[in-house]
Amino acid sequence: MIKIGIVGAGGYAGVTLYQILLRHPEAKVIWLMSEEAHKGKKISELYPHLAGEQDPIIGTLADIDNQMGKVDLVFLALPHGIAMDYAPKLLAAGKKVIDLGADFRFNHPDTFKYWYQMEHKAKGALQEAVFGLPEYYREKIKKARLIGNPGCYPTASTLGAAPLLKAGLIEPEIIVDAKSGVSGAGRAGSLKTHYCERNEGIEAYAVTNHRHMGEIEDQAIRISGDQGIRVTFVPHLTPMTRGILTTIYGKLKDQSSKIKTKELIDLYKETYKNEPFVRIRENVLPNTKFVAGTNYCDIGVQVNERTGQVIVLSAIDNLIKGAAGQAVQNMNIMYDLEETMGLKHIALYP
Amino acid sequence: MIKIGIVGAGGYAGVTLYQILLRHPEAKVIWLMSEEAHKGKKISELYPHLAGEQDPIIGTLADIDNQMGKVDLVFLALPHGIAMDYAPKLLAAGKKVIDLGADFRFNHPDTFKYWYQMEHKAKGALQEAVFGLPEYYREKIKKARLIGNPGCYPTASTLGAAPLLKAGLIEPEIIVDAKSGVSGAGRAGSLKTHYCERNEGIEAYAVTNHRHMGEIEDQAIRISGDQGIRVTFVPHLTPMTRGILTTIYGKLKDQSSKIKTKELIDLYKETYKNEPFVRIRENVLPNTKFVAGTNYCDIGVQVNERTGQVIVLSAIDNLIKGAAGQAVQNMNIMYDLEETMGLKHIALYP
Amino acid sequence: MIKIGIVGAGGYAGVTLYQILLRHPEAKVIWLMSEEAHKGKKISELYPHLAGEQDPIIGTLADIDNQMGKVDLVFLALPHGIAMDYAPKLLAAGKKVIDLGADFRFNHPDTFKYWYQMEHKAKGALQEAVFGLPEYYREKIKKARLIGNPGCYPTASTLGAAPLLKAGLIEPEIIVDAKSGVSGAGRAGSLKTHYCERNEGIEAYAVTNHRHMGEIEDQAIRISGDQGIRVTFVPHLTPMTRGILTTIYGKLKDQSSKIKTKELIDLYKETYKNEPFVRIRENVLPNTKFVAGTNYCDIGVQVNERTGQVIVLSAIDNLIKGAAGQAVQNMNIMYDLEETMGLKHIALYP
Amino acid sequence: MIKIGIVGAGGYAGVTLYQILLRHPEAKVIWLMSEEAHKGKKISELYPHLAGEQDPIIGTLADIDNQMGKVDLVFLALPHGIAMDYAPKLLAAGKKVIDLGADFRFNHPDTFKYWYQMEHKAKGALQEAVFGLPEYYREKIKKARLIGNPGCYPTASTLGAAPLLKAGLIEPEIIVDAKSGVSGAGRAGSLKTHYCERNEGIEAYAVTNHRHMGEIEDQAIRISGDQGIRVTFVPHLTPMTRGILTTIYGKLKDQSSKIKTKELIDLYKETYKNEPFVRIRENVLPNTKFVAGTNYCDIGVQVNERTGQVIVLSAIDNLIKGAAGQAVQNMNIMYDLEETMGLKHIALYP
Repeated sequence: MIKIGIVGAGGYAGVTLYQILLRHPEAKVIWLMSEEAHKGKKISELYPHLAGEQDPIIGTLADIDNQMGKVDLVFLALPHGIAMDYAPKLLAAGKKVIDLGADFRFNHPDTFKYWYQMEHKAKGALQEAVFGLPEYYREKIKKARLIGNPGCYPTASTLGAAPLLKAGLIEPEIIVDAKSGVSGAGRAGSLKTHYCERNEGIEAYAVTNHRHMGEIEDQAIRISGDQGIRVTFVPHLTPMTRGILTTIYGKLKDQSSKIKTKELIDLYKETYKNEPFVRIRENVLPNTKFVAGTNYCDIGVQVNERTGQVIVLSAIDNLIKGAAGQAVQNMNIMYDLEETMGLKHIALYP
Repeated sequence: MIKIGIVGAGGYAGVTLYQILLRHPEAKVIWLMSEEAHKGKKISELYPHLAGEQDPIIGTLADIDNQMGKVDLVFLALPHGIAMDYAPKLLAAGKKVIDLGADFRFNHPDTFKYWYQMEHKAKGALQEAVFGLPEYYREKIKKARLIGNPGCYPTASTLGAAPLLKAGLIEPEIIVDAKSGVSGAGRAGSLKTHYCERNEGIEAYAVTNHRHMGEIEDQAIRISGDQGIRVTFVPHLTPMTRGILTTIYGKLKDQSSKIKTKELIDLYKETYKNEPFVRIRENVLPNTKFVAGTNYCDIGVQVNERTGQVIVLSAIDNLIKGAAGQAVQNMNIMYDLEETMGLKHIALYP
Repeated sequence: MIKIGIVGAGGYAGVTLYQILLRHPEAKVIWLMSEEAHKGKKISELYPHLAGEQDPIIGTLADIDNQMGKVDLVFLALPHGIAMDYAPKLLAAGKKVIDLGADFRFNHPDTFKYWYQMEHKAKGALQEAVFGLPEYYREKIKKARLIGNPGCYPTASTLGAAPLLKAGLIEPEIIVDAKSGVSGAGRAGSLKTHYCERNEGIEAYAVTNHRHMGEIEDQAIRISGDQGIRVTFVPHLTPMTRGILTTIYGKLKDQSSKIKTKELIDLYKETYKNEPFVRIRENVLPNTKFVAGTNYCDIGVQVNERTGQVIVLSAIDNLIKGAAGQAVQNMNIMYDLEETMGLKHIALYP
Repeated sequence: MIKIGIVGAGGYAGVTLYQILLRHPEAKVIWLMSEEAHKGKKISELYPHLAGEQDPIIGTLADIDNQMGKVDLVFLALPHGIAMDYAPKLLAAGKKVIDLGADFRFNHPDTFKYWYQMEHKAKGALQEAVFGLPEYYREKIKKARLIGNPGCYPTASTLGAAPLLKAGLIEPEIIVDAKSGVSGAGRAGSLKTHYCERNEGIEAYAVTNHRHMGEIEDQAIRISGDQGIRVTFVPHLTPMTRGILTTIYGKLKDQSSKIKTKELIDLYKETYKNEPFVRIRENVLPNTKFVAGTNYCDIGVQVNERTGQVIVLSAIDNLIKGAAGQAVQNMNIMYDLEETMGLKHIALYP
C-alpha cells in the first residue's frame, strides 16, 4: 500500500483525487491538507457527498514537517508559486511528489518566468521534474521522483495536436480553440463562477495571454522537436460543470495537401494504439459527456479538403484526465502498478 | 458468475444497468435486447461513451426463446404491459427475473388494473412477485424468483415516509411533492424532452393521476399496516438530467405533537442503522448532487413546530437507486452476494 | 415624467427595475445608488448588457440628503433593516417610497420582530405602509406614500392561495412547496451560488424558518380574515436562473368535499377576471418558462378527488412580478397611470 | 400599418418573429401558417407563453392563394427548397417577401447548388434577391422586393470578419469556430435535441461541410472583393438555449504585422459607428448573455502579438439578430421606418 498525503484537498481537483484514491486497491490516503479556513473540518463537511467514506480531519501546510514522515507520496494541488517552496523539502526527505499545479511543468526556469512572471525558486527540482503526460513521457515517469502534472487544457491540446506535429504534416502554427466547464475556475465563489452569470452564456477569456498557452507550445516544441512552432490558444467558459473540448486547427503543408481524413485517423490510431486512455473516434465526434467522470481523452480528426485545414477535436474531463485521474495514472506508473488501476470508470451517462 | 440478459438495454435505465454490471465481479452480461430500431447495432453505437467496453450486438425480444437458455437471470426494462407476457415463460424455464417496469409491483391485480387501466395477464406470477425494496423486503427478496423493482418516485417516497408511518406519529395522509430530472422521461426525443423546452423551466405534470401515486400508497399501507393511509403525489419536471428529490409532508397526531426534530432523526437513524444505502442527514439537507451516480438514498427530517408538520426530504439518483442500482442490489441479495457488490460508487462531484 | 431614484441598483432586482424604467414612457431615472464597492462606476460596468443605454454613475446612500431633492419617488432594494432608516426621512421630504425589501411588508411591528428578530425602527412609517400586491390592495396603493413591495415567494403563494382561503373551501392550513431559481439568492458570489454547486442539483433550504413564511401567513390571514390560518412553507433552490413555481396544498373541508376542478377554475377566473397580470391556466400547467421576463402570474388549480387535496400551481418571474415588475405596477397605480404601462413584455421563449 | 403573413410560425424563428411583430407599432400580423400538424390550432396552444395576446388560428401553405391577398408582406421561415416554390408567386402578386431560410441567400444558382445539392427552381427571383444584412446592404434592401435573410452563423461571422477582410489586413483565409445554443436545431424532438443528451456536453458537428460555411465564404468574397478568400467553419452545439458566439481567427499579413489591438478596435468602431445594432466591446468580451433577447451583435477584437493571429469574437442571439430580429430590421428598412422600430429590447439579464 502506498501511503499518501494530499495538499489542497479542499479544491475540486484535490477532492477528485481523494475520491479516486479511496477506491484504489494499492493506495491509502493518510492525511489531507487544505487552506486555513478548512482546518479542523472533516472532508465530508466540505463535501457532503463523501458521507460514509473514510473521513479524515483536514490539516494545513503548517504541519507538513510533522506529517510528511507518515507518507510515501505527496500530491500537491496548489496555486502556482507555492509548491516550489515544499517540493524540494519533500524530495530531500525521500518522498515522491506529484504536483498538480504549474510549478514543475516547464523544463526551463526562463519559460516559467516568461509565463508566470515570477522567478522560479526551486531550479534544481525543476530540472529533474518530469512532465506527467504518460502518452509521451512514460519511461521518464517510471523513474521520476517529481512529476509536473499537466494542466487540463495542455492535456487535451497536446494529445490532440502531437501526432500531426510529430508527423510534420502541418505548418508549424496551430490554433487551439478550447471550451471548458466552470469547474476549471475552482470552487471559490465569485461573480465569475456565479450560476446566474454563467448559465446560458458562453464567452472567451484570457484571449491572448492564458498561461496554458505557454505549456501547450512548450510541449508542441518538445514532442515534435520543431523549435519554430507557435500556438494561438483561446479558452472559453462554457455553461456546464465538467469537461474540456479543444478544437485544434492546423494547415496542411503543400506536400501533404492531398492527405485524406482516413489517413489521419489511421495515423492517430497507430500513435495511440497501446494507450489505455486514448480513444480515437471515427463515427461519432468527441463530446465531453462521453468522458465525464473518466480518465479518457477522446480524439477525432478531419480534413477540410476545400481549405486544407485539419481539424482535431479532443475531449477530456478536466478534473480527471485533466488533473486527478492523470495524477493517479502517473502514480501507477511510478510504482509499477497496472496503469489503469483505480481508473476504470465508465462515464456517468446521461 | 451469474449469466445475465437485459431486455430494454437501449433506454437510460437499461444502459445504466448494463454499465453497472460491466464492473460487477460476479456477473456477466451475455446478451442485450432492445426495440426493433436498435437491432443489429452495437451498444456503443447507441451509447458512444461505452467505447472500449465489451460491446455486444443488440437483439430483440423476437429471439427470447433462443436466447433465454444462455442466462440465469433476466432483467426486463420495458414499458408496462409487456413484461407480463414474458416473465411467466422465463420463470417456467427456471430463470430468475427482475422487472424494472410496473407489471409486478402491486400485490393484487385489481390495484394494478385501477392504476394502469388494463387487465393483468400474469396473475400467478404477480402473486409470487416480491417488491424489490430491500430495506423493507430483504428476507422475501432472498427467496424470490421474480422481483418487481420499485419505481423511482416510490423508492424515494417510501424510504422517506415509512418510518413516520410505521411509528404511527402522523395522521394517515401524506403529501409527496417530488422533483425529477428529465432522464426520468426516457430517451425518446419529443417536445417534452427537448432541451429548449425544459431548460430554465420547472412545471408539475400528472398532478392528480400519476401512476406512481398508487405504488406509493400501496407501500405506505403495506409497510404501516394502516389501510386508511392516503397519498397525494405531485411530480415536477426539473431542469436537470438526473435525480429525484421528494419533499414529504405529514401532520403530527395530537399525541405526538410535542416531538422534536432530534427525536425524529434518531428514529430515522435507528430504522436505517444497518442499511448500506441509506444515509440520514443532520447538518446538511439532501441534495440530488450528493447521490448522483450512486445507489444512496439520502434522507433528512424536520418538524415545523409552529404548524405541526413534519417535512421529510429524500434524494436518490433516479437511474441508480431509482432503477438499475436497486435492481443490482436485489440481484446481490437473491444470489447471496455482498449487498453492495458492484455498487460502491461515490457521487461524481461537482 | 416621474423622476426616480433607485437605491440598490447593483443587485438583480435593482438592475431589473432600472431596465424596466428605461423603457417606461412616464418615468425617468435620475440617479442610482448601490454599495460602496460600486461607487463611481457606470451601471454598464456592472452590467455590460446595458451598453448603449443611458449610463449613470453609481452613488451611495451617503449622498441621499443631496440627491433626494431631485426625485419624486425612490425605490429601495436593500437588505432588511436598512430601508427603515431612510424611508421616514424620504417621506418627510415629500417623496414617495416603494421598498422592495422586507421592512414594510407587515402591518404590525411585533410580527416583523418575530420573523426578523430585530426591533422595527420606523413604526410610524410601518403603520402607514401599504402591502404592494395590487390584486388585493389596489385601492390603498392608489393613495399610498409608502409601499412594502411583496417578497417573491409571497407574491406567488398569495395569488395562488387567496381565492381558496377567501372562499373558505379548505381547512385553515396550507402547505406551500416552492421552487426558486438561483437569482433569488442575489448576485454575491458564494459557495451557495456557485455554478458547479447548483447545476444538476435541487435541495430545500430554511425548511422550517424561512422569513417569507411569516409574510405568506400574514397575508393569508389578512385576506381571508381567518386568524387561525397556518402556513407551512418549504423553499427549494432549483438549477435555473429565474422563476418561482409554488405548489400549494389545501385540504377541502367536509362541506366542500364534492367540489370539482372545473368549479375551482371558475372561481379563480372570476376572482382574477379584471387582473391584467394574472392568467388562469386550464389546458396547460404553469411553467416558469411561460412567465420569464414578464409581470405575469400564471395559476392552475386541480382537485385530487381521491384525497380531497386541492393543488394550486402558480408561476412568476421572481425578478419581475416577484420584485421589480410589481414595484413598477405599484408605481403606475400610485401615479394613476395605465397599470400595465412599461410592463407589456412577452416571455422570451424558448 | 403593414399587413403581414408569416409562414412557418410554429418554429422558434417563426414564433420569435410573431412576438416581435405583436409589439411593432407599424405592423399587424394578419395570418400565420405552419405545418399540417399545427393546422387549426391557436398559436397559444403551441406556445402557451403567448396566452393573452392576439391569438390567430394557424393555417397551412395550402391556403396561400386565398390568403396572400390580405397582406402586404410575407415572411417565410421554411426548410430550404420550399420557399423557392412560393416566392415567385408572391412577388408576382405584388407582395414583398422576406425569406428567413436558405433559398435566396446566394447571388448565383451554382453556389446554391454546390452547397445545397439541388437545382435552384427560382433563378429569376434569386437574381433579384438582396442579402438582408443591413450593415452591408442597406441601400439595396431599401429597394428590394425579396430579401434572403442571413443565417444565424453567417450574421455573427460576417459582422465579425468583414472589417478585417475589407481592410486587407489579414491573409485571405479565416477560421470561424462557432458555438451555438440548442434552439438553432429547431423545435423538433430528437435524440440530438434531447435535454439529457445536450446538457453538460459540448461537441462539434458538420465539421467540414456545414452549409453556412458557403454563405460565410460567399459574403467574405463579396464584401471584400477578394475572390481568393477561403473560410474554414466549425460549429459546436453548446448546452444553452439561445445564442451564438463565433471566434474568428485571421493571420496578419506581413505588412500589417505590427498592428495593435487598439488600432483594430478603432477600425471596428469606425466601421460600425452608425450602426444601431452593433456594439464594439473593449473592456469586456462579448458574451451571449449580453445580447439574449436583443437584436445586438457584440464584437470584440484582439491581436496575439506573439503569433500574429487576430482573434475576433462576435455574439448574437441566434433567434433575433440571427433570424427574426434581423428580418424585422430589414422590413423597417424596406418600408422606410425607423430601423430600430420594435427592436429596442434590452437583454433579459441574468
